[in-house]
Parts: sequence; structure tokens; C-alpha cells
Amino acid sequence: MGIRERTWEIVEAGKPGDTASRVFDITILTLILLNVVASIAGTVQSVHERWGELLEAFETISVVIFTIEYLVRMWSCVTSPRFSRPISGRIWHSLQPISIIDLLAILPFYLPFVGIDLRSFRVLRLFRIFRVAKIGRYYSTLNVITDVIRSKREELVLTSILMSFLLVISASLLYYCENAAQPELFSSIPATMWWSVTTLTSVGYGDMYPVTVLGKLCASVIAILGIGMFALPTGIIGAGFIEAIAKKKEQQQVCPHCGKEIH
Amino acid sequence: MGIRERTWEIVEAGKPGDTASRVFDITILTLILLNVVASIAGTVQSVHERWGELLEAFETISVVIFTIEYLVRMWSCVTSPRFSRPISGRIWHSLQPISIIDLLAILPFYLPFVGIDLRSFRVLRLFRIFRVAKIGRYYSTLNVITDVIRSKREELVLTSILMSFLLVISASLLYYCENAAQPELFSSIPATMWWSVTTLTSVGYGDMYPVTVLGKLCASVIAILGIGMFALPTGIIGAGFIEAIAKKKEQQQVCPHCGKEIH
Amino acid sequence: MGIRERTWEIVEAGKPGDTASRVFDITILTLILLNVVASIAGTVQSVHERWGELLEAFETISVVIFTIEYLVRMWSCVTSPRFSRPISGRIWHSLQPISIIDLLAILPFYLPFVGIDLRSFRVLRLFRIFRVAKIGRYYSTLNVITDVIRSKREELVLTSILMSFLLVISASLLYYCENAAQPELFSSIPATMWWSVTTLTSVGYGDMYPVTVLGKLCASVIAILGIGMFALPTGIIGAGFIEAIAKKKEQQQVCPHCGKEIH
Amino acid sequence: MGIRERTWEIVEAGKPGDTASRVFDITILTLILLNVVASIAGTVQSVHERWGELLEAFETISVVIFTIEYLVRMWSCVTSPRFSRPISGRIWHSLQPISIIDLLAILPFYLPFVGIDLRSFRVLRLFRIFRVAKIGRYYSTLNVITDVIRSKREELVLTSILMSFLLVISASLLYYCENAAQPELFSSIPATMWWSVTTLTSVGYGDMYPVTVLGKLCASVIAILGIGMFALPTGIIGAGFIEAIAKKKEQQQVCPHCGKEIH
Repeated sequence: MGIRERTWEIVEAGKPGDTASRVFDITILTLILLNVVASIAGTVQSVHERWGELLEAFETISVVIFTIEYLVRMWSCVTSPRFSRPISGRIWHSLQPISIIDLLAILPFYLPFVGIDLRSFRVLRLFRIFRVAKIGRYYSTLNVITDVIRSKREELVLTSILMSFLLVISASLLYYCENAAQPELFSSIPATMWWSVTTLTSVGYGDMYPVTVLGKLCASVIAILGIGMFALPTGIIGAGFIEAIAKKKEQQQVCPHCGKEIH
Repeated sequence: MGIRERTWEIVEAGKPGDTASRVFDITILTLILLNVVASIAGTVQSVHERWGELLEAFETISVVIFTIEYLVRMWSCVTSPRFSRPISGRIWHSLQPISIIDLLAILPFYLPFVGIDLRSFRVLRLFRIFRVAKIGRYYSTLNVITDVIRSKREELVLTSILMSFLLVISASLLYYCENAAQPELFSSIPATMWWSVTTLTSVGYGDMYPVTVLGKLCASVIAILGIGMFALPTGIIGAGFIEAIAKKKEQQQVCPHCGKEIH
Repeated sequence: MGIRERTWEIVEAGKPGDTASRVFDITILTLILLNVVASIAGTVQSVHERWGELLEAFETISVVIFTIEYLVRMWSCVTSPRFSRPISGRIWHSLQPISIIDLLAILPFYLPFVGIDLRSFRVLRLFRIFRVAKIGRYYSTLNVITDVIRSKREELVLTSILMSFLLVISASLLYYCENAAQPELFSSIPATMWWSVTTLTSVGYGDMYPVTVLGKLCASVIAILGIGMFALPTGIIGAGFIEAIAKKKEQQQVCPHCGKEIH
Repeated sequence: MGIRERTWEIVEAGKPGDTASRVFDITILTLILLNVVASIAGTVQSVHERWGELLEAFETISVVIFTIEYLVRMWSCVTSPRFSRPISGRIWHSLQPISIIDLLAILPFYLPFVGIDLRSFRVLRLFRIFRVAKIGRYYSTLNVITDVIRSKREELVLTSILMSFLLVISASLLYYCENAAQPELFSSIPATMWWSVTTLTSVGYGDMYPVTVLGKLCASVIAILGIGMFALPTGIIGAGFIEAIAKKKEQQQVCPHCGKEIH
């Protein structure tokens, strides 16, 4: 086995019993975790003043390591049958969701002029924890949840469309009711949409609320419809979980006495 | 085929492969979408000042197109067997929900003295998207959701009745508890109903809340009962979705005694 | 049939086709509805000033009618086999929930010194609507809902106990965290319980919230546990509805081909 | 039977018909209940001023009783086969959750310098109510609920992980959006996490909310995702309850091929 093959095994495959791969995985994961904590803590003024330089040094070192890891992955990925072609295979590999997240984690460091700091998105890289810990249990449970959400994709997309319609209509209604009474708060339909979101999700900060009788009447109906916004996705997802369980059972139902399958 | 038949085919039926009908559908849908966006954006002061005349011109043009479309639909609908009689068929057609929405979308333009601007209700016309995109998948999913809600109509109506009773009782209770302490906020039972709605739906803006010990005690019980207001419809709708799935499965079930299918 | 028997038939039994009973039912129901509306409207200052005397007169007349109805019911109830004994039968009848509600609706008028006005509780008498309208559909649906809640009584009682424990613990925690920083708001554990209720039910008026770091940490955990307070009863009630549907099906499942029951 | 065996029977086992054990249980339970009420009431200023000394005396007496009970339990537990060894058995007994709660209830009295008052945690000791009242019904229902939560442990842990990721990401996003506009409120990512919690749980106190357009846009998406935070655990727990019911039913199911029971 060549160095490239071995490298790929270490950075990606992680066969059980491969100590080098396991050590590598845990090291990178710890580094990611520390990085997330550091980038969060670094925004606190007192921490920044006291530990700012240390945090920046740590940031630089870890980005260098992440960059090397990314390049090593790119270099060695061609040993995998999925990405075997030198150019198109590597492009395909770099378009994998996990590679895009990895790139987003290091790119802002080289492009400081972009402005938006994506470091805290590194939290997404922590999803690797499922791979590292080899906790198949959690991994299969994650699959169950994503399968349920995927199997109910259409219902959830439709609920989102209904929600956005409700959002537009409720914002329009309240704008016409409240604009005269509170011209500064309910200044336009887009501004009133913020009120719609906080009401339909039942957050209700209290920065915007109707004061006219008509506005309160409309808002009451909208707030009650907001309960439906909870009931629909909850009912859909609940039904999805029950279906998933039923499917799993159907595959295995065998009478323990005669050994025949029970459909 | 006469012009009237062909026109009806284009504006309504939309057979697969009928390019003219498809182009017509997409054009109208795009116009509706742009109209909704324009009527929302037009309420923003800065947009109105800069683009006001353009938006008004666009509004006038699209209402003219919508009016022509509405009249063409009315003229040609008699070729459909459902609306074949010249007068009663056209009246029946104009009472279809989709025709009423279409009318509401153009009428306010001709009746500016009505006062309430219904333009943003045009968002409802966007439901046509399901017809245009021929995405039977989404259309059948929409049917599943509406079927579930329809099959649980009685339970949901009853829950609404229970909710309105709870609303009246809680508003009365809080009025008697808080009127003395906050005579301006809790000025009457109808005024206190606004508090009831924001509490039972758990929105809680914070513009009205009890300050007396008795009021807080009553409000606590009401807020906890408000959780039931979520639990009941959610449970009902969830059960509805599971029933719908079970029904679908039953269509392929066979009787274990005679082996025939059970519909 | 004596007058007493016929009277009982009119005020209580309501056989189909009995016009007198039906007219009586609708009259009383309309009177109750008008009474509820009047007692709510009467709390509005402007309505009270303008229509106050009229509302009071209407109130007096309807209480007289309700009292007569109550006494007539008491007089004639002995013709029913359930309440046939002159004294113990009438006491038993007066202890029926519906009789207690009827009494509560008229008693405060004769005991004005009691102070608390129970008129708006007359809304409960509107439950008769199910009897009057003879809408068996809604009545049986109401039974389904109450059956589900009754069959899950123990789970719901237990959830309530868990909730009250969570309420006490969270109030104690926040009191110790916030008392020093906000001695006036978080003045005692009972006072902090108001915060617990508004947070666990996710109402969040914003009249009380933690400001210390420790208080915010504890409140975060409590708010997230509050989600469980929604999830548990919703899951329980949802399961109850599904069980109720399954039971109903089991009673009727017969193969349409061979006529045998399918368990 | 020696004194130690009899003592253990009274303080722990509680055979049906054992009056001494029953009286002991009810006495201790009443004392716990009174203690919780006293420690809550004692934080109210007016109660403290008037009844302070009485409450303190009651506190001292009950802690003495609780301490004696704890020591008696420790002394006699070796008669149980589970804790039969003099030293390791007693250590094992003192590590039982119920023993730890008992210790936490008395320890703070002897260690006043610890600072945090854990008296209100005594509410946890009220769980004994299930044992005392011998209400097997409620006890088995409690088992059903804990079984459901345990059987869905992995899904719930995973949902918690997803929630904490969402918490970190949403706090980071809002920090970058709002820090410039509200530097005092959105001062750092950890500070913004408080906003994330109140929004994702839909509590929304209104002490922190975005004011910039970009911040409101992000917050809208986050608030809507917050609905998913309700939908997922609710769906999972609902499915768990339905599974639990199905399992119970299966125990009486027979195989349609051989007629034997399937466990």
C-alpha cells in the first residue's frame, strides 16, 4: 500500500482497530471543539483583552492545521473509487457537503475582507463526532430522524408555503389596521412582517403589538392560527416517526413458535 | 374546435403538452408574483418615493390584464360541461372560490372608495402554482393535508368552541381580579380578552399582565390550560395523519380468512 | 299524562318531533346567549353609560325566567325514574353538574353581597347547544374528546405533579440566583413562581426576567425543560386519540368478502 | 426477628397491612410537605418577620428528625440482601438516588457556609408519595412515562445536540448582525445565547431583540426553526407512547399460523 492510500485511510476511512486513524480523528475533533469555544469566548470583551493574543495565535495554528488537513484530503482522495479521476474526482470531492463546511471553516481566515466571520460555523464540523466515537447507535438514530424528515419533505415544504402565505396576509392586514395609529412601528408591510413572525411563532417580544380594536381582533385570529402552525408540522413529524417504527417492525415480524413471517 | 373552446383550453384546462396553455399559465403566475411583491414593496416609504409612479403604472397594466383574463374566463367558461348554461353557468362559475379570489384581486382598483386595500390578498392566487408546475406530488400532498383537516373538522370545531368558552371565562376572571388595580388596562371584559388571547396562545407581548396576587394565581392556571389548547389540536391532527396513512395501507390489505382484498 | 309529566318532557327530555320542547330549548338558549353578551358588553364604560338601565332591566327579567325554569325543573324532576323520590330525588337532581351551573347563574343576583360576579360563567350553560341542536355528530365528538382525556387521566395528573415539582424547584433556583440583583422583583419564592409559570408555559410577558449570568444559565435550562412540558401532554393526548380510533375500528373490522371478523 | 430487621421493615419495605410502617411513612411525608411549604413561605418578607422564629424552630426539629431517619436507614440497611455487607453495602446504599436526595435535604443545615440553600429541593422527596399511598396505578403510570422517555433516550439526546448546535449558530449570527447596532445588549456571543434560548423556546421576554433589518431576517428564520425544536421532541415522545401501547397489546397477540401467543 502506497503512502497516498495509507494517508487516505487515516484521514477518511477509519477502519475499526486502526489506531493511527483514531488518534488523528480525535485530535482534529478536539481542535475543532477548542476552536469553537475559543471563537465564542473571544467575543467577550474581558476575555479578549486578557487572552486576545493567545487566542489569535491558537487560531492561526489551527487554521494552518485545518488547511493542511484539507489539502491532504484533496491530494489523497483519488485513491477512493468514488473520486478516482484526478481532476473531476477532486472537484466532486470538494463539492461534498462535508468538504464545503471544511472550506468555509478556513476560507474566512484568508479572505478577511469578506467581513462576515464564519468561524462559529465550525460547530457544524462537530457532526464528525458521530464518525469518531464509532457510536453506531447515535449514528443510526440520526439517520432515523433525517429519514423521517426526508420522508415528510413534501408535507413540510407545503406547510412552509402555507406559513409564508399566512405571513404575507397577516402582515398586510395588520399594516392596514395599525399604520394610522402607530405609523413609526407599523411603517410598511415588510416592517410588519417582523410582527407577524414574532406572533405566529408565539415568541412575542413586545416591541410591536396592535393597539387599535380592529388590529387586536385581527391579531387574535392570527395568533390562534399560529397554533395551527405548531400543530401541523408536529402532527406530520409525529406520524413520520410512527411510520418509521411500523416499517422497521414489518421487516422482522416472525412468529417465534412456527418461524413464519407475519405481515 | 371554435375559438371559444380553444380559449377555455388555454385559460383553464392545461392539458399536458399544450404549450400555449403552459406559457399563459406561467405568464399570469409571474405577473401575480410580481404584483404581490410590488404591493408589499410599495408600502415602504423610500421605495414609494423613488419608484412610486412606476409601481402605479405596473399596477394599472396588471389589473387591466387580470380584468381581461377574468372576462375571457367568464366568456369561455360555458364550453365546460359544468358551466354550460349561458347565465346560471356563468353565475355558478363566478361563485367558485378561485373566481371570487380573482375578483377580489381586481375589484378594489375599480372601487377605491371601499378603503381597504386587498391587493396583498393576491398572494392567495399564488396557489395556482400547484396547477402550473404540474407538480402532482405537491398537489396530492396538499390534498392529504386538507383531507386530514377535513376528516377532523368536527373535533377542530369543537376545540374552537371550547377555546372560545375558555377565552370568555378567563377574560371575565381576570377582569374581576385586575380591574381595581389596573383600571386603564383591564377596563372591560372585551378589553381583557386581548390579554386572554395573548396568554392562551403563549404569545405574551407584555403590554397587559396581572399585578395582583389573585390575578397572578388565576393567570397561572389559565396559562397552563393554554398548553392544553396546543395539545388538543396537535393530538387531533397527529392522529388524523396516522389514520390517513393507515387508510392508504389498508387498500392493499388482504383478509387472512379468504385471501381477498379489503378496500 | 299529567301536567307535571308533560312539563318535565318539555324542560328536559326533548323527544324528536316535540315542537313545544324544541321551542322552549331554543328560547332558553337564546336568552342565555344574549345574557352572556350583555354581561360582557356591560363592563364597557361607554356601553354601560348609554344602555346601563336597559341591560339591568334585561338582566332582571332573564334572572326571573331562569329562576322560574330552575324551580319548574325542581318541581317536575320527580317524574323521571332517576329522581323519583320527593326529597332525596330532588337533592340528587340539584347536585347534577348542570343544575349546579344553573344555580350559580341565578344565585349571585339574590346574594349581591357575595361580591364576585359569576354572570359570565353562564357561558358554561351554552354547552346545552349540543342538546338543542340535536347535532349528534358534535355530541359524539365531544364524547370522544372527553373519553380520550379521561382514559389518559392518570398520565395527565402525573404530568401535572411533575410540572408542579418543576415549578417549585425552578422558582427556588431563580430566587437564590436573582434575589440579590433584583430584590424587588424576585422578592420571595412565591413571587418567583409567577416567573416560573410565564417561562415554563413560554408566555414570557417580560415583567420579570433574570439579569445575572447564573440566573440566565438556570433560566435557559428551565425554559428548555418547559418544551418538555408541552411535549409530554401533547404526546399523551395524541396517543390517546390514536388508541380511540384503533378501538373503534376493532369493533367493526369484518372482511367484506367472507363476513368473518378480523381481530 | 431482631430490632434491626423490624426497623428496616418500618423505614423501608412497607408490606401491605404493616400499620407501623404506614404510620411512619405518612408522618415523614407530611413533615417533608410541611417543610417544603415552610421553606417557601419563609422567603416572604412579611411571613418571615411575623413567624420567622417559629419557622426556624420547626426547621431545626425536622432536620433533627430527618437526620435520625437517615442514620437509622444507614444502620439498618445491612439487613437487606442488596446492602448486606457492613461497609460496601452501606456505601452502595448511600449512593442510591433516593439517599443522595435525603442527604442533600439535611446537609445544608450542617454546612451553612456552603451558601446555596437546597431546602426547596426537598420537594423531590415528595416523590415518596407514590410509595406511601400504595397507589400502584400512579406508580405504574410513572413507569410508563419514564419507560417512554428512556426508550427514546437516544433520539432525545440527539435532538438536544442539534438544539445546542442551533443555539451556538444562531447566537453567532445574531451577534454579528446586532453587535454594531446594540453593543450593550448583544455584547458577545455568550450574551447573545440568552437571546437564542428565549427565542428558540418562544418565551420572548422582550429584554433583547434585533433592531436591524438583517438581524430581524435571521431572527425570523431562527424563530421558525424554533418551531421544529417543539415538533421534534413532541413527535418522538408521541411515537414512544404509541409504541408502548402497541407493545402492551402484543403481549396478548397470537400468531395466525400456529395459534400460539407471541410475546
